Formats: sequence, structure tokens, C-alpha cells
Amino acid sequence: MTVNKIISKISVTLILALISFTSELKSQELKSPDGKLILNLELDSKGTPKYALSYKGKSVIESSDLGLQIKNQPSMIEGFEIEETEKNQVDESWNPVWGKQKTVRNHYRELKIKLVQPEHQNRYIYLRFRLFNDGLAFRYEFPKQNTLNYFVIEEEITEFSLAGDHKIFWIPGDYDTHEYSYTTSKISEIPEKMDGATVNINAQTPIENLAIQTPSMMKTDDGLYINIHEAALTNYAAMDLNVDPDNFVFSAHLAPDAVGNKGYMQTNTTTPWRTIIVSDDATDVLASNMIINLNEPTEYEHTSWITPMKYIGVWWEYFVEGKSTWAYGTETNVKLDQDFNKLTPSGRHGANTAHIKEYVDFAAKHGMDAVLVEGWNIGWEDWIGNWKENVFDFTTPYPDFDVKEVNDYAHSKGVKIMMHHETSASATNYERRLDRAFEFMKEYGYNSVKTGYVGQIIPRGEHHKGQWMVNHFIHVAKRAADYEIMINSHEAVRPTGLHRTYPNWLAQESARGTEFEAMGGLAPEHASILAFTRLIGGPMDYTPGIFQTDLSYYGDNQQRVNTTLVKQLSYYVTMYSPLQMAADLPDNYERFPDAFQFIKDVAVDWDNSWYLEAEPGDYVTIARKAKNKYEWFVGSMTDENEREATIDFSFLPEGENFVATIYADAKDASWDQNPQNYTIETVLISSETILDKFIARGGGLAISIKKATENDFNELDIIK
Amino acid sequence: MTVNKIISKISVTLILALISFTSELKSQELKSPDGKLILNLELDSKGTPKYALSYKGKSVIESSDLGLQIKNQPSMIEGFEIEETEKNQVDESWNPVWGKQKTVRNHYRELKIKLVQPEHQNRYIYLRFRLFNDGLAFRYEFPKQNTLNYFVIEEEITEFSLAGDHKIFWIPGDYDTHEYSYTTSKISEIPEKMDGATVNINAQTPIENLAIQTPSMMKTDDGLYINIHEAALTNYAAMDLNVDPDNFVFSAHLAPDAVGNKGYMQTNTTTPWRTIIVSDDATDVLASNMIINLNEPTEYEHTSWITPMKYIGVWWEYFVEGKSTWAYGTETNVKLDQDFNKLTPSGRHGANTAHIKEYVDFAAKHGMDAVLVEGWNIGWEDWIGNWKENVFDFTTPYPDFDVKEVNDYAHSKGVKIMMHHETSASATNYERRLDRAFEFMKEYGYNSVKTGYVGQIIPRGEHHKGQWMVNHFIHVAKRAADYEIMINSHEAVRPTGLHRTYPNWLAQESARGTEFEAMGGLAPEHASILAFTRLIGGPMDYTPGIFQTDLSYYGDNQQRVNTTLVKQLSYYVTMYSPLQMAADLPDNYERFPDAFQFIKDVAVDWDNSWYLEAEPGDYVTIARKAKNKYEWFVGSMTDENEREATIDFSFLPEGENFVATIYADAKDASWDQNPQNYTIETVLISSETILDKFIARGGGLAISIKKATENDFNELDIIK
Repeated sequence: MTVNKIISKISVTLILALISFTSELKSQELKSPDGKLILNLELDSKGTPKYALSYKGKSVIESSDLGLQIKNQPSMIEGFEIEETEKNQVDESWNPVWGKQKTVRNHYRELKIKLVQPEHQNRYIYLRFRLFNDGLAFRYEFPKQNTLNYFVIEEEITEFSLAGDHKIFWIPGDYDTHEYSYTTSKISEIPEKMDGATVNINAQTPIENLAIQTPSMMKTDDGLYINIHEAALTNYAAMDLNVDPDNFVFSAHLAPDAVGNKGYMQTNTTTPWRTIIVSDDATDVLASNMIINLNEPTEYEHTSWITPMKYIGVWWEYFVEGKSTWAYGTETNVKLDQDFNKLTPSGRHGANTAHIKEYVDFAAKHGMDAVLVEGWNIGWEDWIGNWKENVFDFTTPYPDFDVKEVNDYAHSKGVKIMMHHETSASATNYERRLDRAFEFMKEYGYNSVKTGYVGQIIPRGEHHKGQWMVNHFIHVAKRAADYEIMINSHEAVRPTGLHRTYPNWLAQESARGTEFEAMGGLAPEHASILAFTRLIGGPMDYTPGIFQTDLSYYGDNQQRVNTTLVKQLSYYVTMYSPLQMAADLPDNYERFPDAFQFIKDVAVDWDNSWYLEAEPGDYVTIARKAKNKYEWFVGSMTDENEREATIDFSFLPEGENFVATIYADAKDASWDQNPQNYTIETVLISSETILDKFIARGGGLAISIKKATENDFNELDIIK
Repeated sequence: MTVNKIISKISVTLILALISFTSELKSQELKSPDGKLILNLELDSKGTPKYALSYKGKSVIESSDLGLQIKNQPSMIEGFEIEETEKNQVDESWNPVWGKQKTVRNHYRELKIKLVQPEHQNRYIYLRFRLFNDGLAFRYEFPKQNTLNYFVIEEEITEFSLAGDHKIFWIPGDYDTHEYSYTTSKISEIPEKMDGATVNINAQTPIENLAIQTPSMMKTDDGLYINIHEAALTNYAAMDLNVDPDNFVFSAHLAPDAVGNKGYMQTNTTTPWRTIIVSDDATDVLASNMIINLNEPTEYEHTSWITPMKYIGVWWEYFVEGKSTWAYGTETNVKLDQDFNKLTPSGRHGANTAHIKEYVDFAAKHGMDAVLVEGWNIGWEDWIGNWKENVFDFTTPYPDFDVKEVNDYAHSKGVKIMMHHETSASATNYERRLDRAFEFMKEYGYNSVKTGYVGQIIPRGEHHKGQWMVNHFIHVAKRAADYEIMINSHEAVRPTGLHRTYPNWLAQESARGTEFEAMGGLAPEHASILAFTRLIGGPMDYTPGIFQTDLSYYGDNQQRVNTTLVKQLSYYVTMYSPLQMAADLPDNYERFPDAFQFIKDVAVDWDNSWYLEAEPGDYVTIARKAKNKYEWFVGSMTDENEREATIDFSFLPEGENFVATIYADAKDASWDQNPQNYTIETVLISSETILDKFIARGGGLAISIKKATENDFNELDIIK
């Protein structure tokens, strides 16, 4: 038993377990521990369960249907009776392996309802609701019973009937990709904006009816913040949301499999949790631990091999310079096991031994933990677009990449090489080679891998967000754990807090990340929407740290990263991840060593976090304390508008003085003008300090804080 | 380089390579080495290639279309011009790792035609025809070219236009199963008999239009035997045949994938060979090596670990006795990794350590090489019918099966345990566990595995006969070779001679085998049809040797094996396989030790074979010489009619005398009356002996032959 588990167990407080047996009860009420949220559950005249949710007396979810359509069996939608209800309250704390805070409190009231269908041999399910102070979660549970063993889901019909035409930050519903830009509109405006929102993405399957994705972030006219997502997505398809734009009703839309089924179920199972985070303060949404609390504790016996990290990589140069490539050969039609011993070198292969060593030297010099190397292995000549199964073998380097020499060199300097497994979405090929791929990694001393799933899924007809692929991603994480390998998955289904259960699954992409800055750019507001959407499910490998934002610096490239340099710094705090890339080229960091110092200093694991200011789509200001270190870091980012951030340092210990190094946009900076103009000042602060600081259009702010020394007092200004 | 390859190389005789460059040639002719078969190839007015085949002046295939329908690209059906033709002749010999004969002659004339489509940027393909003395083979070849890299096959439209309304032995076209009973009819009668032929099989997908399967065996009114099949089925879907019953035209029908596509192709590839074996003597069809000759030589560096074998198994008792079962627990809803440590023992689990040891003792006593154990591993409680992915893990035994003790005990007696991997058709689950499953086998000393694919395929929407599963079966064989493990696959796509390339793929089921004798019975003619159909592609694990044919012997069982006991003996010679089971219960062999002696004696690998008598659906008589032994064995089987087999022993060395032990049906025996009445006589014979011998209805004949000793002369009768 790990320390983690022991702490969990001793802190559990089971206050109340109230079990009622009745078939007459038609409605139930549950209040959150602080009483602000109230859930109502009732059966309508057809025996369909309906739930409603209010916050401080305001309706959040109006009466909404619950249930599932089952294939070739009676539906689980109507004809229910409530046979039994049970209420519990839990207040416990637990320590994640890594995270935004050292200790997480899990505090909720629970209502469990047994729903029986007398007309179908008393077949029954449970509805389990958990009401936290910051939101509602519920799921369907299917116990083992004589009259129900295996069943196939045609559709989950769970509804979310919203109380008004809210402002919503949304991307189009899609079975395969999350990499859309966000649109901000009223719910009623989604239809007219859907076409423009559905831009081309490699391997996309937009949902045919009107639908959007989760996490779905909304704001009501009267100032409520509502976030709908799911937690603990295992052995089930990911949920998108059908949109009824006239009545403001969303309903579950699961990703289908190759034959159109949406879930293969065996009783003694549950759906994922459907989550609704609610508050009248946007920072509560960022601070919410509801989703991670709803996931299962890890069963890994040892976790000391799991280490948050900073890394650089042979990656951004492929996008911006146009000089180097993933591929080694000039051929455009190659076969694994046939053609790779006779490739014609292009002379532009990025992942060559000498070049990697330059990155390793840089990493060693600046304390980066690892160097990602993309394009090291055979297969890149025609890896994309052909729905081809055997593109990569994950164990054969190109001839100019000496896997042993590179790793030995890196290890001699205290640096790890991060493996790269692009699967080209051929999950079958990856699975059959997985043990061998991981054995290869162990042989050469790799301890982490970035996985990629660009393209149409194989098994053909499956989707990135379907049940089969959901299970695949978990399978890879679990099998990686067998080899003590950490995973950073790209193009995987968006996270739902599973990193609690599989803490070696450090981070994911699963959204439009920095790479799109080199392919059309991201809106300046993008990151401040992501913080309220994609990041609600778990850490993102956003790959920040681009200092050279104007890509014409590289010659013909007309692209531009739509942030100031300082905003890139702020991401290391605002865009939480235990895995942070310094994504720019080493040369660019050498040009701005004073700004790069923040990236070198910033922590990647935390004792605690404070959410100071936030408004979805506009700005986010967060402070965090480094894990097991007397250091704090603050990040603030804004959208296309300049603003003055207000940093209240009351999160610092009282009665002490600290040195704050403040990285700020220069007055003349903005994402499109002088983005590299910044100021760095070092000042003394205390827990009583309140700092108002200019942030440029598309800009940011980054502050590192440590305890002041005697010397600091003599040299630095004090800010109150 | 193996001895095998050296011999192949030195015996190659490339007599002729005639290359013609022309765009005017509209027709080509090719003759078989003996001149009896003539192929004609021409382009019609639309530029569609058409071929025709005649045998001794009789039309076998009338002018028939060739080509492929391609998805989202111009078809490869018309608009062709012949740009270049090339003729070759090959006469070589090679030695299989195991087989019906020690040396195989590969003798053919070849015509290769370059077909160009000027209207499609001179996109081109090759048609390659090989004309052997016993038939025609041809395939499509797709060379790498600028204007053709990747393409998707919608359908191959290859036609086989037959010259008349032939008698045909057929089973219904199906994407998933070969396990139908054969129907004998005229081609024109197929429509009216299709419904009755399409009986229920677990996991079947009958083709919607009128279609039958290959190998398809026909006999013309004027005595020609025609067999249509394919060779070297790799990275392509299996071919069934659409039937035009009015015009006697068959055309290719490939098994689709989950989204309806039929093949994902990358140039520098070919289709499998389409094969048409032709003769006016049915024994030539049995003797044909055309299909194995069309397969690639093995690339395995070492093959000494590949050993033909005889085995018994904990298997038939599950069908006939009703006492023992595969499953250990009484539960009907279990999950891997959750429920198997709390099963309720039924007390009827067959694969328990003590019981296996009884089989091992029997195997050791009677010289059997291995004992198959089915039901040893967790998962059997609810393994079938739920399209469930994770049924088995292939590494966890039931609690009453001590894998180490069983193997140690067997090995101490010179016996191997044969592994069993039922996959429940969840190929994805099998692939992701394959390395671990094979490592487990090596750890405990298993060297062979029977695989099973009962059920609907996962990846869902794929089929047993589609391109993906074709590749899966080969993947398993190749990966097994990495561990020096031999494969015996059940419910796999029917063979096409790939055992030449992957000689550890010893045998397959892929047809209605002995198990169906316990589930409704097989027609007495079944095996004599199989010899001309299923066995044309490769060895079958038919699991013969049932002595107790009346299953009411076991109590309530009303089933009957529809053969005499002696016919079961004959199968060891007539139904060629390097892997032969003695499938009955040890007790039954103990009751008939004199008959069992034949099974103990008979070889499983051969220096040579002689096909003495044959008529599809009626009878087969074959003699074979044991590999590296001065021993011969003869088998003869008949259908529901009694007959007199004529054994001409001229295959024996001249001028020597031999002792023949003749196992024959008694006069009063038949499949339905006194099937266990047999005679065994020992006589002296020579190469001049001709033996006429009675075979009962549904009966057989088996003879073992070895060199006579002085003593034999004194004691035995001489037969002339």
C-alpha cells in the first residue's frame, strides 16, 4: 500500500448513510455540503427519470431526461420505478502523485437511486449523483443481475436542459478531432456559426447533426459559470453534445464504432460521470477538483519513477525553418521491412545524431530534463493520408540516428531522450508492436514517450473518441506502466481526469495547441478559453515557450505566433501541466537569456495553487507554490485586449519578505507589434502586497518568487 | 542459407525469356509444357483484357474479363493497351520442410503482359500467367510508378466463364465461415439449393448475392475436372465467387472490411494467384502441387524446430460425454482480471492436472507426440456470443491446472503439451497479448498452439476472410516463428499454400471437420469432397480417429459419426496433414488396440505420394512413403456407397517383398450398421501385387507396409 492510499483511508469521513426502501417515492432532493447547489430527481408519468439543478436559487439545469437506448432490448428510458434510495456524505483528502496541489479534498453528498423496470423482469439500474460545492456529477450503474448481462448501447439520451440562451465557448462535435478553434456565441447562434467553425483538420468526422464538444464552457446572463464535461471515461465512448438551439437543450451523443454501435457493456459496470461545474465565480471553475476526485485512485504499487519534467525537442524546427524534416529519404512510396535499407537521403533529416547532441548540450546547460526527438525512426516518407496500417515499427532508427550513442551521450550529461511514437492512428499496428517498442525503450534508457495519432483510425471505421480507442489509450498507459514509462499522448481522446488512476499518463494534447501557431495561428483569446475547456479534464502538453513569434524571421514563413513573448512565459503557470516543453529553438533562447531564466526556474509540480482572477475567453491569473520548495510562481494571460492584472499576494506566508522577479510586457508590446519587448524587474514583496500590472494585447505576465535575503533588502525596492 | 534454398537454386532451369515490345499486339497465346493446356489472352474493343483456357482442345474457361474496380480513381477494367509481353519457362525442384513428397517440381511456362492505360497518364499493371501441366494461375501485379502509389479496391472483377453447366461441389459464399456442408448440383441448380445449403453456423455472414466459396470443384459432362481457388493469399481479402447460374459465369467477390472497402493497396504489390487446376483424371487434381509452387519459399533461417506430429487431446470428451467442460466455474457473467479468483467450481472442469496426466500417460505409452489441452485458461464461462473483446488472457490457468507440473510431467515422459489459444475471434485482444502469450509458452516448454477464432471478429465489422484478418493470421504465424512455435489454426481463412512460406503454420481447420460429427453428423461423402476442395489449399487438422462412432455409447447422446472405424484409419493417409490428431478418448483406443496400432504406426511426413484412385464426392485412394523410412501406407475411403478399391502396389520398389497389414471393413460393416466390425490381415506383397478390396458403405481401407523378413516368408500368405 502506498503512502497515498494510507492517507486517503485515514481521512475518509463517512458522515451519513441513509437508506430508504420504497416504491412510492417519486422525487428526491439533494443539497451540496454548503447548501448552494440543489439537485432534484423525479420520475415523470411515463416513469422516465428527470433531474434538475439549481445554484443559489437560480436554475442551472431544468428538468432533463436521463436514460439509455439499448439495442435489441427494451430501452432504459421509461417504465422505471424508484425501489430504493441511499444518501451518503464523504469528506476525505488524498495526495496525488503530482498535481496542482499536494492534497486534494474530496467533499460531496451522494444520492444513489435504484430504478427498476417492473415490465422488464424487474431489470434495474442505479443512478448515482454526487453533489460537490462546485458542481454535480452523476452516472448510470449497471449491476450484475439475472436479467441483464450483456447489452449494446444505441445512444445515451442524457439531457442538459439549460435555463437560458447562454454565452458558450464551443468547438464542433466530431468523432475524431478536438483540434478546432473555439467559437464564442449564444447557444441559439450555434447553427449559423457551425459551418465557419468546422475548419479542415487531418482526419476529422464532424457529427452530422448539430453538436458540440465537451468540456463545454458557458456563462449565463446573470453571471453563472457552467461547465459540462465527463469524468473517468473508461470502456465507453466519449460524449459530445447534441444541441437544440431553440430550447437550449443539450443531449449526449456518443462516438459510434465501425458498425454504428456506441458501447458494448457487461453488467457490473458504469458509465463515466457526467459533470456540471457551477459557480458565480469563474476562478472556482479553474480551481475545481471535481473531475479528478471522480476518478479512481491509482493501483500502481510504485510511483517514484513518475517524474514531472521540462523538456525541449527536435520539433518546432520542422514547422518553422523549412530546413529539416522528419523524413530521411526523398522517396514518397516506401514499405516497412522492404525499402528502408535503400532510401535516398534528402540531406535534411532533422533527427541526426550530431544535431540531437546539440539539443542535449543545450538541455544539459539549462537544466532541461529531456530532449524529445521526432523523426528518429523509419516510416516518415509517406506516413500520412493513405489509411496505411504498417507505417512505423517503433524500433528501427534511420541510419543517421545512433540510438545508443545519442542516449549514452544524453545520460552522461544527466539528460533523458524522450521517445516519439507516431502511430499514424494505426492503433492495431501500435498494439501489436507495443511490448517490443517498450522493450526497445528500456534497453536504451528512455523513460517517457510522446505518442501521436494523426490520421484515420485503424481498426478502420473506429474513431479517436469511440469506446475501442478510449480503451486503447488506457491500454497503452497501463502497459507503459509495466515498463515504468511515462506517456504524453497527442491526438488522443480529451482527458477526463484519468491521470489520477494512471499517473504515468502525464499529459495529452487533445486540443489545438502551439503547432497551429505555425499553421494559421491561434486567436489571442485561445489559451484563456482552453483553460476553461480542454484543461478542465487534465493537463495539456501545450508546448509553450515560443520566443520568436514572428516566423518571417526564418525567411519565407509568413506565419505568426499570436502572443507576446511574456505571454508564452505565463503559460508555464496558467496552462497547468506536469510536462512542460520549452518549445522554441535553442538559438532563440540563447538570444533572450534573461527571459529564458523564467522557464528554467519555473516548477512543474506544485504544493498548492491560487486562482486569482479569471474570465473565460478574457484572462486568467494563477499563483502556485513549487512542490517541496519555498518558491512561488505567478502567471497571468489576457486575450486580444490589454488589461491591468491585479495580483494579490496574500497567498504568501504572512510576516515574511520575498523577492519577486517580474517578467512583463513592455508598454509598446502586443501580440502583433513588438511582441519581444518586455521588462524584467526584481522587487521585494510580502503577503500584503497587491500589484497592479499592465498586460499588453495578447500579452501576459510571469513572476517568480523566493524568500528574500539580507542582501535583497539593501538592493531592491519594496512594493506594497 | 538453408539446404532447402540451395537445392532450389541449383535446380532452376530458365529455358526461355522472350520479351516483345509492342502496342499493336492484341492477343497472346501460351501453352503448358506438355502442350495440353492453351491460354489465350486478348484485349477486346474497349481495351478490356480477356483470357480463355482450353485442355486437349476442350474449352475450360471461355473468354472472361479481367480487371479491378478502384475507389475514387479510374477503374483498371478497360482502356488498356498491351505495351510489352514477356515469356519465360521455369523447371526447378525444391524441398519443402515437410509435405506429401520430399521434392516438389515446379514446371511452368509464363506470360507476363504489361497493360497500359494511355488515358490515365499511362498508368500500368502487369498480368502474369503461369501455365503448368495441371493448370493455369494468374495474378495482377502493380509496380511502383509515379502515377500510382496507393489505391483502394472496390472489387476485383475477374471472371471464370465456364463452358457448360457442370456438376459442382460447393458451399455458400460467406465472409466469415467455411464450415458448411457441401452441396452437389449443377451450376444452374445453385439458386434453388442455396437456402438449404446455408445452415446456421456460429458467426456467419452469407454473401447477399448468389455466391459460393473456393476451392470450387467441378466435373464437366465430358469428364474434365476443374478446380478454382487461389494461391499465396497475403495482404488481400479472400475470394469467393459470384455465380451467374444462367451463363455459368463465376466472378471474384472479395470479403469487405468494416467500411465496405475490399483492399488497401500500395504499389510494388500483387494480388494472390487465381488458380484453375484442370485434368481429365481426378487423381491429377489431388496430386497437383501448383498452389504450393505459387507460394514464396520460406525465409526462416532455421526450420529444424518444425516437426510434424501426432497428438491426442482433452477435446472430444467435451463433445460426447457431457461430463466435462472447458469452463471451470458455474458463473455466466465474468470479467477478466476481476472475477476469476472467486469462481464457483462446477466440479466438471476437464483440464485439471490429474486428468491431463492420464492423457499424458496414454500419449507416452503409445508414442503420441503431444497432448492438446483445451479449457486450461480462464475465460470459458461466458466466452461466446457477446462480441466481447477481452475474454481470454492466454496466460492465466484455472486453479486446478498446474501449468508447470503438467508440463514437467509430460516432458519427463517425452510428451509435449499443445497450447490452446481460443481467441473468441477477438483478434485485437490476441494481438496485444501475443508476445506475452508466446513468452508464457516458452517459459513452460510448449512448442505448438492450436488457435481458435469462434465468433464475430473484433475489430468489429471486420471478417474472418477480409484483408485485415488475412494479415492477422500471417502475423500470428510469423510472430510464433520468432518463438519457434508451431501453429494449428481453427476458424482461420482457408489455406492457399502459405505453409510453404510459413512452415510452422502446420495445419488449419477452415472447414467442417470431425467436431460436426458430434453436432448433427457429416455426410459419408463429406471427406471425399474435402479432399478435392478444402485440402487443395493446404493441410487440414481434420481430427480423425474416432473409433466409438455411435455416441449413444455415452448415454443420452443421439449423435453418430457417419463412418466405419476403418474409414477413420484411412483419413491418416487420405486427408493429408503434418499434424494428425487421434481424436477419440484414450479408453476407446484401449478397447481396439489392434486397430489403434495403425494410428500409432502411420507416418505424418512423407518422401512421396501416389494418387491411385479418385472421384470427387465418391472415393479417394492414396499411397504414401514415410519420410526417411522404408515404410508405406495406403488409405482409401468411399462415400455412402460400398465399392471395391483396387490397390496397384507398383509404387513399391521392384524386386522386393513387403509385409502389408490390411485394416478393412468387415462384410457386414457400414457407417450406420456395425461400424466397428473390421478385419486385420497381414500378407506378403510386392510391386507387382494388385489388390481388390471391399470397402463398406461409408467405409475405408488402411494398409501399412514394411519390408518383409525371412520369418514373414514362412508365416504369411503372398498376394499377387
